[in-house]
Amino acid sequence: MASNYPHEDADKLAYEKSEETYKEWDKYWKAVQLDKTESIMTVTQGTPIDWEAGTARGTGDVHNKSADSDKDRRWVFAMRHGERVDHTYGNWVPHCFDDNNTYTRKDLNLPLRLGERVGGKDSYAKDTPLTRVGQLQARLVGEGLRLAGIPIKHVYASCALRCVETAHYFLEGLQADNTVKVKVDPGLFEYKMWHLIKGMAPFMTPLELHKAGYNVDLSYKPYVEIDTVSPESLEDFYKRNEKTMHAAVDDTESEGGNIIFVGHAATLDLMAVALQRLREDNTDQKPYQISKHLLRVPYCALGAMKGKPWEIVAPPCPPSINSSSGRFDWKILLDL
Amino acid sequence: MASNYPHEDADKLAYEKSEETYKEWDKYWKAVQLDKTESIMTVTQGTPIDWEAGTARGTGDVHNKSADSDKDRRWVFAMRHGERVDHTYGNWVPHCFDDNNTYTRKDLNLPLRLGERVGGKDSYAKDTPLTRVGQLQARLVGEGLRLAGIPIKHVYASCALRCVETAHYFLEGLQADNTVKVKVDPGLFEYKMWHLIKGMAPFMTPLELHKAGYNVDLSYKPYVEIDTVSPESLEDFYKRNEKTMHAAVDDTESEGGNIIFVGHAATLDLMAVALQRLREDNTDQKPYQISKHLLRVPYCALGAMKGKPWEIVAPPCPPSINSSSGRFDWKILLDL
Repeated sequence: MASNYPHEDADKLAYEKSEETYKEWDKYWKAVQLDKTESIMTVTQGTPIDWEAGTARGTGDVHNKSADSDKDRRWVFAMRHGERVDHTYGNWVPHCFDDNNTYTRKDLNLPLRLGERVGGKDSYAKDTPLTRVGQLQARLVGEGLRLAGIPIKHVYASCALRCVETAHYFLEGLQADNTVKVKVDPGLFEYKMWHLIKGMAPFMTPLELHKAGYNVDLSYKPYVEIDTVSPESLEDFYKRNEKTMHAAVDDTESEGGNIIFVGHAATLDLMAVALQRLREDNTDQKPYQISKHLLRVPYCALGAMKGKPWEIVAPPCPPSINSSSGRFDWKILLDL
Repeated sequence: MASNYPHEDADKLAYEKSEETYKEWDKYWKAVQLDKTESIMTVTQGTPIDWEAGTARGTGDVHNKSADSDKDRRWVFAMRHGERVDHTYGNWVPHCFDDNNTYTRKDLNLPLRLGERVGGKDSYAKDTPLTRVGQLQARLVGEGLRLAGIPIKHVYASCALRCVETAHYFLEGLQADNTVKVKVDPGLFEYKMWHLIKGMAPFMTPLELHKAGYNVDLSYKPYVEIDTVSPESLEDFYKRNEKTMHAAVDDTESEGGNIIFVGHAATLDLMAVALQRLREDNTDQKPYQISKHLLRVPYCALGAMKGKPWEIVAPPCPPSINSSSGRFDWKILLDL
């Protein structure tokens, strides 16, 4: 009976089919567990273990203890943003803002508050924030890398609000030290031509983002600047993403440390091609392409590469799924 | 294009149709806002306001300041549990436990750890925990009541683990003072006959729940005890729920304070009938019935009543929806 709930769609999510994916991830988990003689099942009994504090906080020491011979290779990750308010609620802005631009959340999964920005509610309509579930999805990935003992030193985010927020909550979950901040780079924004028809909002400035509480690097100078009015070709789009990714990898090489690019569905594909183009043994360069996998990249999907030479590898934390849940109409209780 | 993502099902969630629901909720939100001269939009600018600390923490003073003439009437709430692990992942236990009962999460939305319990993994297979999203859904309802200035003094939960956890995380969101604990009462468990075919797990004892970190009242003596082997009739089921709800309302009347029953989809209907039967002006008692609305009660749905005389009212916080998100297969990146 219970499986008939219309909002519980386990069968579509194909859990059983993805067991294979876990095998490679398992080795990272097992490396972390080397430090832990007790299973999670026994953690809550007797002497409590601070499970989370027991793992590396940005130091990578747990990871270094693993038998992984690749331990000196840098990680580069690409992640899509989390659950969007606009795709969850449809036309939400007229319901949630009054004429004075005052925001009231009309659903518990909407953000509690929104930062001040140029364009007010119109800008929010065109540049959506994350839902509360979206914030959680991002936090879970950060926590996942922390528990796998993988620190992140360099965080680059697309200038779309949903991406900056995803990077912010990812860092919360990672519990990175507070020198790690989000570098907002318009070079990572998705293809402009998808947005120019209905018009693009002015992106929130780093100062607006900072005032709204996001952990952004106010001193960061983007590799690429884009405007919200002029068109771009697909080639322009590929080039600005490649420029940003190549520059980020090159400019952090001497300092070292792992990197994450927080962007859009296309960001995972773009990273895969861009970094493979950095291989010296790469004689036939793969072409960039759009939309091959877009619909198979869910919220907060994580792609991972290691260098050098750069290659696509299994992410060191498991993926994340969740089911949908509908709106309850309390008035059905009157009809008993 | 973006609206074609298969996991973003905004159109099914009928946002626009439920605007009416908000009207009654709005008055609670406005009452809370009386204490706040600035809109949320301006909160992050200039002088920061601690928005959450500004509301009543269990004292009800914000609510009392509203123009609500019913302010002395008690609230009783009924809430369904949050997102279930089993309905989200299907047959999860063989994937997540080894032969030593050691639990490993294979997805970021699975709980980080599980408490020790009689029956180990077999018990978890029959008595599911919440997902991380389920924990968030419960926390959001607690936060919603806190922001509406509605304190809760008495929390009763069904003995199903998912309900105890929902009550626990609800209390986290409510930020109730630590004298408020979850009273686990088997009287609120759902209809036993749905479970006897595949067998029921031994419920976690209050001591097991306490050791696993849940905020349960170890001194509470349940109104009803049930076993996991003997059958019950529908009439038995109605009676034990009614007995628990009537006793909870009566026994807390002199002390006062609002009540929540955390249970199952049927718990909302059961509360509505049980409390209306307490009305002295109630000459024709409504019959209990099962499954009339079950499929219309999503995760963490909240029903609300006020007394006396007991009547169904609009909940003082908005409902909650979220979309589903599928599992990312990183190997698609190899196929570029």
